[in-house]
Amino acid sequence: MEGDPTLRLRIFDLNCWAIRYLSKRRQERVQLIGDVLRQEGFDLVLLQEVWSERDYSDLKVKLGSCYPFSHYFRSGVIGSGLCVFSRFPILDTLLYQYSLNGYPYMLQHGDWFCGKSVGLGRWRHGGVMATLPPSCQLHAEYCREKDAYLPHRLVQAWELAQFIRHTSKAADVVLVGGDLNMHPEDVGIRLLRGWTGLRDAFAEATRFEGCEDGCTLVPNNCFTVKSELLPFPLGIRIDYVLYKAVSSFTVKCEELKTTTGTAPGMDIPFSDHEAVMATLQIRRQGQAVGDTLGTAEATLADVVTEARTEVGVGLRAAQRQRYSTGRMAVLALLLLLLQAVAALGTLMGLGAGQPFPKFSFTLLAFLAIGVLFLATGLHLFHTMEVKMLQGTEEQMRMALRTLQERP
Amino acid sequence: MEGDPTLRLRIFDLNCWAIRYLSKRRQERVQLIGDVLRQEGFDLVLLQEVWSERDYSDLKVKLGSCYPFSHYFRSGVIGSGLCVFSRFPILDTLLYQYSLNGYPYMLQHGDWFCGKSVGLGRWRHGGVMATLPPSCQLHAEYCREKDAYLPHRLVQAWELAQFIRHTSKAADVVLVGGDLNMHPEDVGIRLLRGWTGLRDAFAEATRFEGCEDGCTLVPNNCFTVKSELLPFPLGIRIDYVLYKAVSSFTVKCEELKTTTGTAPGMDIPFSDHEAVMATLQIRRQGQAVGDTLGTAEATLADVVTEARTEVGVGLRAAQRQRYSTGRMAVLALLLLLLQAVAALGTLMGLGAGQPFPKFSFTLLAFLAIGVLFLATGLHLFHTMEVKMLQGTEEQMRMALRTLQERP
Repeated sequence: MEGDPTLRLRIFDLNCWAIRYLSKRRQERVQLIGDVLRQEGFDLVLLQEVWSERDYSDLKVKLGSCYPFSHYFRSGVIGSGLCVFSRFPILDTLLYQYSLNGYPYMLQHGDWFCGKSVGLGRWRHGGVMATLPPSCQLHAEYCREKDAYLPHRLVQAWELAQFIRHTSKAADVVLVGGDLNMHPEDVGIRLLRGWTGLRDAFAEATRFEGCEDGCTLVPNNCFTVKSELLPFPLGIRIDYVLYKAVSSFTVKCEELKTTTGTAPGMDIPFSDHEAVMATLQIRRQGQAVGDTLGTAEATLADVVTEARTEVGVGLRAAQRQRYSTGRMAVLALLLLLLQAVAALGTLMGLGAGQPFPKFSFTLLAFLAIGVLFLATGLHLFHTMEVKMLQGTEEQMRMALRTLQERP
Repeated sequence: MEGDPTLRLRIFDLNCWAIRYLSKRRQERVQLIGDVLRQEGFDLVLLQEVWSERDYSDLKVKLGSCYPFSHYFRSGVIGSGLCVFSRFPILDTLLYQYSLNGYPYMLQHGDWFCGKSVGLGRWRHGGVMATLPPSCQLHAEYCREKDAYLPHRLVQAWELAQFIRHTSKAADVVLVGGDLNMHPEDVGIRLLRGWTGLRDAFAEATRFEGCEDGCTLVPNNCFTVKSELLPFPLGIRIDYVLYKAVSSFTVKCEELKTTTGTAPGMDIPFSDHEAVMATLQIRRQGQAVGDTLGTAEATLADVVTEARTEVGVGLRAAQRQRYSTGRMAVLALLLLLLQAVAALGTLMGLGAGQPFPKFSFTLLAFLAIGVLFLATGLHLFHTMEVKMLQGTEEQMRMALRTLQERP
């Protein structure tokens, strides 16, 4: 870019659905992803759900010659599953773990164990340009009608937006790619785009090629769960490439492509998600542009208010759960105390005529101890949840005040 | 500052030691802190260990007239204990929770439950100046000779440094105040200062008044544990005000003061820590200064290497603990299986001659289940710990490469 004022950047983004032992034909697909990435030679590759470090290492070895720089973001019990491959040196990375991410006892959903996060990498190319490619994944949506995780996802969307706002000044261009688990019209994505000024590559692309409406979870992908997509005959769009110019640059999306149910020229797909491939044109312009919000401030205030209402709903649910688990812990403790009194009574010779039911007594005591531990653990967890939801509500209140006070 | 090119900023920083039911004379001290803050009229007040939200609310009511803007950072089970009071509007806040923070089973130390974090607030004054006042607290040091928490504290110091590097570009001046739980010569503080370019107000102050060597945990404070300070007759310095100019500004520390064992003019101290009060002079200068590192790069590489070695030691300890807790879980599972086989044998009529020891059998089964749950929980925890330590080691390796590659 030193001589040429324009940089063309090709980005590949994919939720790889590479869960060891659970994802179908995982090894074959990871190999295929590696092959295609090596052939195509993108500038920047953002992958999610690469849960096995072994898969990452294999990809790293395979891609070493065309993407000499890479980073795997570690977090949670299983990991964040995020990794980045780049043609340009990655100068620096930072991982931000969302403060809320589902419930540890919802084992069937498993989000809690994954430590969902946003990974930020800073890189520089041609001596002029510094950009940020955060790769991220938000909490999954398991039931759209009764979405118990909506408040958690909104907290994550808000934290992602705040994280981008606070870290973006260090860059000329901000790029975000990932599986946001939100439909384009959802409040979370409107909040993220409005509060950061990020633009949606699909909406802005000069040329588009791929699934209708840019969907990335489509019925004609053999790995998607068809019943879940019944209300959406075309599929849904939940994987995004977003971008924004911060200083004296402009960014345009020349072309956006998605795969269409299978990998190009193959009979199996890369993943249950479609890949998103964007070609961005980054151009230096004369004067610096200020930081902008994505939406007119009046509309943005409405979006923040809507999100705050949803977070409030989640807060009240968390408060109820905190109360009921606390009550259960107290009841278990009372039961234990009662048992202790009964045992003491027996030891002191009261009720000596009746045989002491040692077996059922011990069973009950262990049960009470089990309930006590479980309920206390859950109570602590919901206490944390309440705190984080309160914190987000407070931050949103502050944001609304700032928006309203602007001239 | 619109007309006058110089802004004088008075900062107050204190670890309040306000733990409900545990800290001595808490209410009296919080009241005293409020009174003094109201009288003195600082510009910015950074408080740590305000664990009770009630105390924060009381302070907020009392200080509302002179510090109209404030924020309480919520995190963890108990909270982060961090709050900020400001004369100028706080535009925005962001909380970053350290990925490692001690062990949940070390109940007597309790750091894990506190969700230790760095709280970042962005504010603007006089239309020209935007600054960041992160308030932070790192993991406590309980035994200097055999400091089991050193790797965790180093991970925190590194994450704090990375967080400051990535967010500081959004500001003209970066201010950090807090109880860092590190002595000035410790590798963690050298890493933080070197990697961010932050300057130590105590070392740079034109005038200093207070405890010798700027100590903030001193023997003649009636709340400090004298036995812990025996190797340090003067006390130790672990509370800091650090600062840095990012763009076209310069910052100078005109004056630094600490309290000296008691609150000014009173017979009790504010806390077991001394308060740090800094007067900074912020001046706009002609041209923008680039982002600088705090130490010559060769020395900085040594500091990063030293920190990386310590993180490596912690990593190996965590790997050992992950292995032994995993082994214990497997043993408990084997015991349960053995019991199941024995119970099945009895049910099928084998060994019918002997009476089945129902009571001790149940007791053993419950014990095995208990051990299984506990060991699995610990195994998951240490798996996370290993991942975070590996991640930090990897980031430090990347930093070293970047340092070495610079011309």
